[in-house]
Amino acid sequence: MTNRRVLLRSRPSGKVGHDNFEIRDVAMPALGDGQVLRRTIYLSLDPYMRGRMSDAPSYAAPVTVGEAMCGHTVSQVIDSRNASFRQGDFVAAYDGWQQYGISDGRDLRKLDPQAAPISTAIGVLGMPGLTAFVGLIDIGQPAAGETVVVAAAAGAVGSVVGQLAKIRGCRSVGVAGSDAKCRYVVDELGFDACVNYKQDDVYTALKTACPRRIDIYFENVGGVVSAAAFRLLNRGARIPLCGLIAEYNARGEAPGPNLLPVLVNRAMIRGFIVSDHVDRTVAFIAEVAPYVRAGRIKYREDITDGLDAAPEAFMGLLEGRNFGKALVRVSPDPTHP
Amino acid sequence: MTNRRVLLRSRPSGKVGHDNFEIRDVAMPALGDGQVLRRTIYLSLDPYMRGRMSDAPSYAAPVTVGEAMCGHTVSQVIDSRNASFRQGDFVAAYDGWQQYGISDGRDLRKLDPQAAPISTAIGVLGMPGLTAFVGLIDIGQPAAGETVVVAAAAGAVGSVVGQLAKIRGCRSVGVAGSDAKCRYVVDELGFDACVNYKQDDVYTALKTACPRRIDIYFENVGGVVSAAAFRLLNRGARIPLCGLIAEYNARGEAPGPNLLPVLVNRAMIRGFIVSDHVDRTVAFIAEVAPYVRAGRIKYREDITDGLDAAPEAFMGLLEGRNFGKALVRVSPDPTHP
Repeated sequence: MTNRRVLLRSRPSGKVGHDNFEIRDVAMPALGDGQVLRRTIYLSLDPYMRGRMSDAPSYAAPVTVGEAMCGHTVSQVIDSRNASFRQGDFVAAYDGWQQYGISDGRDLRKLDPQAAPISTAIGVLGMPGLTAFVGLIDIGQPAAGETVVVAAAAGAVGSVVGQLAKIRGCRSVGVAGSDAKCRYVVDELGFDACVNYKQDDVYTALKTACPRRIDIYFENVGGVVSAAAFRLLNRGARIPLCGLIAEYNARGEAPGPNLLPVLVNRAMIRGFIVSDHVDRTVAFIAEVAPYVRAGRIKYREDITDGLDAAPEAFMGLLEGRNFGKALVRVSPDPTHP
Repeated sequence: MTNRRVLLRSRPSGKVGHDNFEIRDVAMPALGDGQVLRRTIYLSLDPYMRGRMSDAPSYAAPVTVGEAMCGHTVSQVIDSRNASFRQGDFVAAYDGWQQYGISDGRDLRKLDPQAAPISTAIGVLGMPGLTAFVGLIDIGQPAAGETVVVAAAAGAVGSVVGQLAKIRGCRSVGVAGSDAKCRYVVDELGFDACVNYKQDDVYTALKTACPRRIDIYFENVGGVVSAAAFRLLNRGARIPLCGLIAEYNARGEAPGPNLLPVLVNRAMIRGFIVSDHVDRTVAFIAEVAPYVRAGRIKYREDITDGLDAAPEAFMGLLEGRNFGKALVRVSPDPTHP
């Protein structure tokens, strides 16, 4: 039995390219006592993976060169010598960019395909959704009537931030990279406004979209969006900082936003890493899962077929070419034939 | 009776120059019922005044062109038609850059020249000291064994930050603009180390001075010091942000520090304005005044004689040419003949 894997061949200097990856077929070891073998159905592509390709100091160890890229997965058990798992079970795992995973099962979480589509376990009801929840609710502490701005608003995190903010009575303003995404964000997700950062004068457009300026700027991109948002902060503004995707491909260190508006407005910036906040999962699921079931929180998936296409899809994610949560369908989803 | 005043003649674009000021003698009005007339002894020069010269949006209204520059003062009552004040009383006021002030007295705070030198009311025991206290203690929340970094370490705010941090059991590292200031900061004020940002490779020198990296970076300067400190943050670092003096004379908007270390280290930046925290004055005086009396917190004053020299002294402050708390002695101090 052969396992196809996408390895990190070399660390990128600046922009990620195909030459940073290598696709290799390796033999699977035999299943040991107590072990669980599963086939990857969905692989989640997330911006944080750019950090793991680099060996710059960060909050997690980098992927070793020559090893498979890391990543959250949704899989189906195809063989089990572990009493807790049966063939056919669906599980959430962290198997990375490969067709099969094998372990003692302690890294697996069983999924109920009746409760929600299995792909949501790595999307709106998974790590991206929890990131939105912790950043907006715990750090941002939104109050009704406040204005919340989030970039990558059609994406996995941004879409949940804006919809949760609406539910909490805020004005939700998105930023996205095309008119089609902006229309989706406003018409489908129900944001109050959306700015196309590739076409508009971002500062002027954001100012128009935020007539009462900005109380919470959910920072997940950096760059020009960040610079514009900082200039529009209200007194006492909060800036949950969970990502700087616009800067991940930069060679060397990009300058950040001028901090004078943070001083003048007594604003607060707080960096956070979602893995520190897994204790909030229960509260997150209790609040968000019913909204998803009721259609009050919508999500969109941008699915690329086949593991071989993962590098290209990941490069697209870093440049905002995805439209919705970026997933790779590594093998067919039996729940959506 | 003539009152000499230093007026804001024009708003600076970039660097402050002599042409932004105008010295003018005006007649004093007669003293009305209930009013108090005082002669300025000391005028405090502080970095925030650069903000008041500009009409960019800020936390306080700008000085009106043609009006006297604002500022904290220590004065002596020379005439009073107010039962609460007697000729000879020393008071702290906010009379600005002028020889005399007049008001109904509600803006005055009586000083006891026996308790502390009167000049400390606008220095180590005044607004600059309170700024250090609120930023370090309330926002920074220092724990024994942590490393605290502060720039302008020989100045009014920085010197108190570092000495208070030492008293709380922290490692205190200063940054200052000359070897003489650095020697003073270490030898006199008792900091553990000090980096000369004008001579050293700031990042390398700061790294050497902070072998356990940085837990609290008290941000009062911005610029190269800020960029270096951000790269050395520890996990959970706190950054009280009270000033960006290195950027005040910039034309347009200077870029800020890259925020990736804030994200990776789950750090927190919080802007604050000391005038929001006057409720902390009692706690501040209760803790710091005994240290000052006991010589555990030392201070140094950089006194310029004569109101006419205030513009030059203020320009020096913005470029770090002062060595200690910047004061103008507008008239002789009778308590220090």
